[in-house]
Amino acid sequence: MNYKMLGRFLGLVLLIEAGLLIFPMLVALIYNESATPFLITIGILAVVSLPTRFIKPKNKRFYAKDGFICVALSWILLSAFGALPFVLSGAITNYIDAFFETVSGFTTTGASIIPAGGIEALPKGVLFWRSFTHWIGGMGILVFMLAIIPNAEGNVIFLMRAEVPGPQKGKLVPKLKDSSLILYVIYLALTLLQVAALLCTGMPIYDCLINAFGTMGTGGFSVLNDSIAGYNNPAAEIIIAIFLIIAGTNYNIFFYILIKKFRAISKNEELKLYLSIVFISTLLISVNIFNSAALLYDSFGHALRDALFQAASIMSTAGFTTASFDTWPYFSQTVIIILMLIGASAGSTAGGLKVSRLLILFKSMKREARKIFKPNSVKALKLDGDTLSEDTVRSTLSYFVFYIMAMIIPFIILSLDGKDFITTSTSVIACFNNIGPAFGEAFSSYCGFSDPATLLLSFVMLFGRLEIMPMLVLFSPSTWKKN
Amino acid sequence: MNYKMLGRFLGLVLLIEAGLLIFPMLVALIYNESATPFLITIGILAVVSLPTRFIKPKNKRFYAKDGFICVALSWILLSAFGALPFVLSGAITNYIDAFFETVSGFTTTGASIIPAGGIEALPKGVLFWRSFTHWIGGMGILVFMLAIIPNAEGNVIFLMRAEVPGPQKGKLVPKLKDSSLILYVIYLALTLLQVAALLCTGMPIYDCLINAFGTMGTGGFSVLNDSIAGYNNPAAEIIIAIFLIIAGTNYNIFFYILIKKFRAISKNEELKLYLSIVFISTLLISVNIFNSAALLYDSFGHALRDALFQAASIMSTAGFTTASFDTWPYFSQTVIIILMLIGASAGSTAGGLKVSRLLILFKSMKREARKIFKPNSVKALKLDGDTLSEDTVRSTLSYFVFYIMAMIIPFIILSLDGKDFITTSTSVIACFNNIGPAFGEAFSSYCGFSDPATLLLSFVMLFGRLEIMPMLVLFSPSTWKKN
Repeated sequence: MNYKMLGRFLGLVLLIEAGLLIFPMLVALIYNESATPFLITIGILAVVSLPTRFIKPKNKRFYAKDGFICVALSWILLSAFGALPFVLSGAITNYIDAFFETVSGFTTTGASIIPAGGIEALPKGVLFWRSFTHWIGGMGILVFMLAIIPNAEGNVIFLMRAEVPGPQKGKLVPKLKDSSLILYVIYLALTLLQVAALLCTGMPIYDCLINAFGTMGTGGFSVLNDSIAGYNNPAAEIIIAIFLIIAGTNYNIFFYILIKKFRAISKNEELKLYLSIVFISTLLISVNIFNSAALLYDSFGHALRDALFQAASIMSTAGFTTASFDTWPYFSQTVIIILMLIGASAGSTAGGLKVSRLLILFKSMKREARKIFKPNSVKALKLDGDTLSEDTVRSTLSYFVFYIMAMIIPFIILSLDGKDFITTSTSVIACFNNIGPAFGEAFSSYCGFSDPATLLLSFVMLFGRLEIMPMLVLFSPSTWKKN
Repeated sequence: MNYKMLGRFLGLVLLIEAGLLIFPMLVALIYNESATPFLITIGILAVVSLPTRFIKPKNKRFYAKDGFICVALSWILLSAFGALPFVLSGAITNYIDAFFETVSGFTTTGASIIPAGGIEALPKGVLFWRSFTHWIGGMGILVFMLAIIPNAEGNVIFLMRAEVPGPQKGKLVPKLKDSSLILYVIYLALTLLQVAALLCTGMPIYDCLINAFGTMGTGGFSVLNDSIAGYNNPAAEIIIAIFLIIAGTNYNIFFYILIKKFRAISKNEELKLYLSIVFISTLLISVNIFNSAALLYDSFGHALRDALFQAASIMSTAGFTTASFDTWPYFSQTVIIILMLIGASAGSTAGGLKVSRLLILFKSMKREARKIFKPNSVKALKLDGDTLSEDTVRSTLSYFVFYIMAMIIPFIILSLDGKDFITTSTSVIACFNNIGPAFGEAFSSYCGFSDPATLLLSFVMLFGRLEIMPMLVLFSPSTWKKN
C-alpha cells in the first residue's frame, strides 16, 4: 500500500468537495438562508485536505489494489464530510442519518431518511446540496478528477474501472483524460438540455435543476414530499421519463452519435434489450394497473403514463415516483422488483446488475444448455458481433454470485431489526441497486430503521454503487496484512 | 430422438409404478378400506405400459438429450398416473390438485394441497401412497430401475446424471448397476433403522413407516394435521431430526463408512460445511426464538429442540414441522429462508442449491477477489484436496444463474395469482427447492392457489427436483425441431 499516494489522493478528493460546496452555499445566499453550515464544512475540508498537498511521494507506483482502496475510501470520506451541512443546518439532527442521506445522494440511490412529508420544510440550500450529490456521484467524482487534473495518466485507469459501473469499461478515446472529459461534457450537455425542457413546462428553475440532477445522476431525490407526483404536471413527467431512459443508456451510445458511428449503435445488443425491457414492462404494468380490481385509473392514458414513468424511473435506478407503486397489484409490484434488480446499461450513471451483464448471463446459459445437445463443442460467446473472452464470461458469472451474496448477507443481518419480510428484502434490494424507494415501510422514508440498520444500509448502497469489489478489498483483512 | 427406445423405457417405468402401487393397496386392505382406487390405477397402468414391451428398437443408441427427455417424461407420467388413486378414492376431487400432490410426493417436496386440518380424515391407504411417493422419488425411480433391471449398462449413465442431484455425480463403483444397488441398499437400511428407532418411542408402526419415508426421502408429508408436532413426542422429534441430518448427507459418506475409508470422510469439505450450517443456524434460531418479545418459549431446551428440528427439516428440504416457524421473529424466518435456498448435500435425496455447489461458488468468489491482488495468476480450485476442472467451475457458476432465473420467472407469473409478496416468493422457493411449507398463506396448505397456479407450482417442483436441465430440454422448442 502506497500510503503517501493514498493520502495525497484523498486530500485532493476532499479539496474538490470543498469547491463543489460553493454551489449550494450560493443557493443558500440567493434564498436568504444561512450559509454558515456550508462555510464551516468548507473550512473543515480545507483544514483536513490542504496539508496533504505537501505530501511528496517518492514512489508513484499505484497498483490495482491501491486503486480500489482509493475509490472506496474516497466515497466514504466524501459522504462522511458531505453529511456535515445536514447536521450543521439542523435539517437532520442525527449524524448517522445525515451520513445515510449523503451516501444515498452520492451513490445516486435517493433513499431518504427524512420522515414522509418533511422534505418541503427544509432549507433550499441544503436540498440543493442533497440533489447535487446525485449529479456529482452519478458520473463519479474520480472520473471528474481525471477530467480536470493535469498529468493524470498512468495507472489511474484502475480508478475509472472501479468507479464506472458495468462489465466493459473501455476508454472512449485512447487518452484517459480525454475520455473522462468527453463523458463529463456529454453529461453536462444532457443535464442542461433537460433543464431547458423542464423550464418550458413552467417548472421553476430551482426545481428544474434539482430534478435534472436527480434524473441524469439516476438518483431520485426530490424537493417535494410527493416526489414528481407533487408537480401535477404531465408534460414534466413525460420529459423526466424520457431523460431517465436517456440517463440509463450507455454513454458510449452518445459518443457514437457525436462521431456519427450509427452502425455501432444499430448493432448494440444492450441498447436493444434495455429499451425492450422498458417498453415491455411499461405495457405489462399499464394493462395490469388499468384492469386492477381496485379501480386505480379511470383512463388508460394516465395508467400508461404512470407505468412508463415508473418503469423508466426504477429501471434507470433513479426512484422518482408519480404513483404509489407500493399499492399497485402484486404483479406490477413484482415487475418493479425485477426492474430494480436488472438496472440499466453499463457505462451509464445507473445501478443494478446492468443489462449487458444480463445479456452475457443469458448467452452463457444458452451455451451451457446447448452443451447437452453437443457436449464437445464450446463456442466463444459474442456481444455486438465481437468475441467475448472466457475471462469476461467467467468474471460476469462470478459477479452474479457476488451480486446475489452481497444482498443476501445484509438481508439476514437487517432482519434483526424486526421489520417485515417485504420491507427488509426490498430495502436491501433498493439500496444495493441504488433505486431509493422500497416496498412496505420503506416506500416514502427509511426513517423507521434503527441506527445500526441505517449504517448497514449506507454501506449496502456503497457496495452497490462501486460494484462490490472496492468495498470488499477495503474490508478484507488480507488487504491489511503485512506482506 | 429415438422414439422406440423412449416408448419402451417409459412403459417400463409405468410398469414398475403399477408394481409399487401394490403396497398401498395392501395397506388399504389391512385397514379395511376400499382397494378399488389402487386396482383401477394398476389396471390402467398395465393397459398403457404392457404393449410397450413389444416395441423392439433396432437402434439402441441413446444420447444425452434422449436421456434428459426420458427422465423428464418419466417423472411427469409417474405423477400423472400416480395422481389417480387420490381422485378415484375421492380424497382429492380436482385432478390438477391431485397431480400437484403427487408431484409434491415424488419430488419429495411435501407441499400439500389438502386444506389445513383435512389430512387425518383421509384413508390410510391413500396417505400411505402419498408418503411412499417420497421414498420412491427420494433416491429416484430410474436409479431403482438401473438397480433391478439386467443389462442396464451403456449410455444410461445419462439417466443417473439427470436424476441424482448435485454437481459431482461419480459412480460409487465402476459398474453403474452396482452403484445403483448399493445406493438403494443403504437407503433401505437407513429407512429400516429409523423405523426401528421410532418404534422404540411408542409410535405406531404405520406412522413410523410414513415418517421414515418422509424423512429419508426428505419429503415431509405427514399423516397428522399438525405434522410431527401432533405426536407431542420429544424423543421421536429428536430421532427424526437426526435422521433428517443423515438424509441430507452425501451417500458417498455412508459408502465410505461401509468400506472403512474414514480418511475420505474426514477431509470431506461438503460434510463439514453442511453440519456447520445446521448447527450454527440451530444456535442462531434457538437464541432468537427464546429471547423473542412474543415469549414463545419458557425453556431454552424446548427452543433448542424446535430450532434443531426446523433447521434439520428445512435444510434437508423435508419440511416436517414441530413449530409454526411462520410466526417466529423475522430473523429466524430469514435464516429458514436461506436454509431453504441452500439445501443439503449433493448425492443425497435433498433439494436446494446443494452445499457442494455453495462451496464451489465461495471458492470461485475468493479466487475472483484474489485476482485484484494478483491479476495474472489464476489458480485451479480444489475440493476435498482434488483439483476441480474449469469446466466444473463454469458449470457450477452457470447453474447458479439457471437456479436464480428458474425461481424468478415463476415468481413473476405466480404474482398474477394475486397472493401477497411473501406467499408468492416463498411458495416458489419452497416448491423449487422441494421444501414444502412456505410462509404466509402457504404455510399449512397450498389450497388457496388457482388451478393454473397449482399447475405452475407442480412444474416448479419438477424443475427443482431434476435440477432444471431435463425439464428445460423437454420444453425447449429446439429439441423438437427436425434437424
